[in-house]
Amino acid sequence: MSLNEKEFVKEVTPRAVDFSQWYIDLVLKTELMDYAPIKGCMAIRPYGYAIWENMQQLLDKRIKATGHQNAYFPLFIPQSLLQKEAEHVEGFAPEVALVTHGGDEKLNEPLVVRPTSEAIICSMYAKWVQSWRDLPLLINQWCNVVRWEKTTRPFLRTSEFLWQEGHTVHATEEEAEEETLKMLGVYKDFVETELAVPVISGLKTEREKFAGALKTYTIEALMADGKALQAGTSHNLGQHFSRVFGIQYLDTDKQLKYAWQTSWGVSTRLIGAVIMVHGDDRGLKLPPQIAPVQAVIVPIITKKKREEVFEKCRELKTKLAPKTRVQLDDREGYSAGWKFNEWEMKGVPLRLEVGPRDLERGVVTVVRRDTGEKSTIPAGELPQRLPHILKEIQDNLFRQALAFREENTHFVQNYAEFQEILQEKMGLIKAFWCGDAACEEKIKDETKATIRCIPLEPEQKEKGACLFCGKENNRMVYFARAY
Amino acid sequence: MSLNEKEFVKEVTPRAVDFSQWYIDLVLKTELMDYAPIKGCMAIRPYGYAIWENMQQLLDKRIKATGHQNAYFPLFIPQSLLQKEAEHVEGFAPEVALVTHGGDEKLNEPLVVRPTSEAIICSMYAKWVQSWRDLPLLINQWCNVVRWEKTTRPFLRTSEFLWQEGHTVHATEEEAEEETLKMLGVYKDFVETELAVPVISGLKTEREKFAGALKTYTIEALMADGKALQAGTSHNLGQHFSRVFGIQYLDTDKQLKYAWQTSWGVSTRLIGAVIMVHGDDRGLKLPPQIAPVQAVIVPIITKKKREEVFEKCRELKTKLAPKTRVQLDDREGYSAGWKFNEWEMKGVPLRLEVGPRDLERGVVTVVRRDTGEKSTIPAGELPQRLPHILKEIQDNLFRQALAFREENTHFVQNYAEFQEILQEKMGLIKAFWCGDAACEEKIKDETKATIRCIPLEPEQKEKGACLFCGKENNRMVYFARAY
Repeated sequence: MSLNEKEFVKEVTPRAVDFSQWYIDLVLKTELMDYAPIKGCMAIRPYGYAIWENMQQLLDKRIKATGHQNAYFPLFIPQSLLQKEAEHVEGFAPEVALVTHGGDEKLNEPLVVRPTSEAIICSMYAKWVQSWRDLPLLINQWCNVVRWEKTTRPFLRTSEFLWQEGHTVHATEEEAEEETLKMLGVYKDFVETELAVPVISGLKTEREKFAGALKTYTIEALMADGKALQAGTSHNLGQHFSRVFGIQYLDTDKQLKYAWQTSWGVSTRLIGAVIMVHGDDRGLKLPPQIAPVQAVIVPIITKKKREEVFEKCRELKTKLAPKTRVQLDDREGYSAGWKFNEWEMKGVPLRLEVGPRDLERGVVTVVRRDTGEKSTIPAGELPQRLPHILKEIQDNLFRQALAFREENTHFVQNYAEFQEILQEKMGLIKAFWCGDAACEEKIKDETKATIRCIPLEPEQKEKGACLFCGKENNRMVYFARAY
Repeated sequence: MSLNEKEFVKEVTPRAVDFSQWYIDLVLKTELMDYAPIKGCMAIRPYGYAIWENMQQLLDKRIKATGHQNAYFPLFIPQSLLQKEAEHVEGFAPEVALVTHGGDEKLNEPLVVRPTSEAIICSMYAKWVQSWRDLPLLINQWCNVVRWEKTTRPFLRTSEFLWQEGHTVHATEEEAEEETLKMLGVYKDFVETELAVPVISGLKTEREKFAGALKTYTIEALMADGKALQAGTSHNLGQHFSRVFGIQYLDTDKQLKYAWQTSWGVSTRLIGAVIMVHGDDRGLKLPPQIAPVQAVIVPIITKKKREEVFEKCRELKTKLAPKTRVQLDDREGYSAGWKFNEWEMKGVPLRLEVGPRDLERGVVTVVRRDTGEKSTIPAGELPQRLPHILKEIQDNLFRQALAFREENTHFVQNYAEFQEILQEKMGLIKAFWCGDAACEEKIKDETKATIRCIPLEPEQKEKGACLFCGKENNRMVYFARAY
């Protein structure tokens, strides 16, 4: 094995040449995933799945801390159940996978492979919710879902994907709205703190909301190519589902009332967000909080000091392991330079080099993936200092992503400028919109830009003219082309 | 709300009257699961799912400690892939669910919803395994699988269930066999240590082995009704799959060789094992290691000391929480007696009663679910002592289960006695078997008893006559009726 170092990197298309190809090259080359022999499906390889496991753990903790419990509901939904809520079926029916045969027999009724679980969960909740004492019902599920997508893209849009979906039931409209916003806040905190991806919280327009929801809130992130990505959604379902599924509770006033519901989810597409926000031409840059390997030790071997170097590396690993996810790359037959490139591409936040000279001086050479900065640190100080350096990297990644978003957010007051920006640099575009779905639709048809959200905390209170029709209004929204 | 205490318990059928009904009553009444509106499918409710989460965590740690990484493979398998391995398809084809339509269109080739993932995983491994450097490949997946079962039973046999499936690739036959046995050992340790369920390790007969395997090893447990349950299996797949899927590696000697493989799995059926091994007429008895709630605090309220008692309970909860999964049952409108019964039924290992008299004496009344034993412990000592008491309960549950198994294991030398035992008390029956599948088959047809396993460590080396045909041999096996 003697791959040329430059060749190794050359296999990934530069971002500036073709962002899409850069992304595909990277997810394959870093072994995050691989294509499977089923249309639009992928295998998530161990390195990619370990990122997902870290995300799961950090989010699950937050979901439980806010009083939710996990459960598991069936994969299959009888077609008639999915059809109960009119908007819901309209939104999902065109993209479902249907099971028509089971155990060699044709089924009386086809089963839908869940594209989302409102229908099956509501059919159970109708049994479980009887009295005000049963409320609120706060349940979450981690599972796979299937949506038969026409065009797919690893992590961002696949026919099968992994996600969590929370489904809650409340006594009042106010409580449901409070829950919807609380979980949006949990998502924002999780994505910004752990993934170092800044997001804008807002409300979806009627046109963009979840099929069956009263209101959909979203967190939106800006990718490095100037396109937006919906990173998570939280829906206030109102009584849409409780009325068709008969989720009623006997209130303290002895009246039977329809319950109020929410649902909310984030998925493995967040892995795509992390790649597209932080990555560069040298590869991934993983935020330390979710990196499967936070620091990799690479021994610099010379013939003479071989055993001493290895010994020091093993010792270092043992000392760092309690507080840091550390790996020792002791593979034979690969040059140190080759290993440097590989771990850089894999986005490991810190590289620790240990060579004969470091050994003599009692230091370790520490290289940051985010800045490329190189420093030497006394070996004895490393266990204490590493967590702080990792924290600095995490913060720096967030700062850089935030700065990028700010540079690429444009306030626009006329449609020509709007079109020009979309043509040239994309990014997020803040503009006034009259609230009319017709204007929204025409803008989308002409520019492929959609309203990402009506921000929860608008910065400007003043009025302005609708980008498209010119009607005066005070609704400032974010537009972007999106994944 | 004022349910009579006796009524509460009366809703569960006594074990001696109808074990099957007792089981069903219990899983529904304790809210472990509920039936879903799809044939043979269930919803795992939060209390049941929390048991599964604890099991997952404890087993996942062991799987990773033995060098395996988690990954995720597609839910769907093209029918042609499943058909590649002849025995495999013969075993699974009759019980698969088929997706024939996706996104409103008929598919060119039906997709099988995975009943197990050998086929799809091997199709990926054929790409990933190229060189001896890629071996061993040690991957595990946590997921749902679907087998269209004719008769179903909560947790024990459902059309969809949750499990983990390990799939490994090795350079040599010896390594594959070593891995197969290593994971069997991991399962045995996990089930005995964490679930307090004693198991017998052994080899399946040709008739009972996994469809497509060279050899199947199993751990078998004895349920309280005298029936056996296969609690986990580990398969040496030989080169069966590598040959049909083309999993080849270039060895150090420059020769292209077919790899050797294993697969192994345990599922949510383990929840059923825990219920049937430990439960009694008062309800579940959960081993502390996997109990969602290890200790429940029940306030004994009188009008006068109400606030003081609640205050003490909250304080106790805070002090116990760092080391114990503790819950305070502060629900209003339920009597203490009603709560006692409910938590007993839910199998919580310890009940902590705090009443006005306990308050005065500075003690807490501690009641063990496994023995019913009541003691008073100074409140200040509780945080230190509770983990020890929980350990005692865990050990005691295992001892009781082991004693039960020993009492219900019978060594039998003639067929009449064999039939009599199966008629009267069941249990595990040790007997000699000639090794002929015909004898095995006839015994099954006549008695419904199957060979559970050929134990790994036979206790007796001597020879004996085959239970059915009388032929002299030295193969001692375990028979039982099984779930």
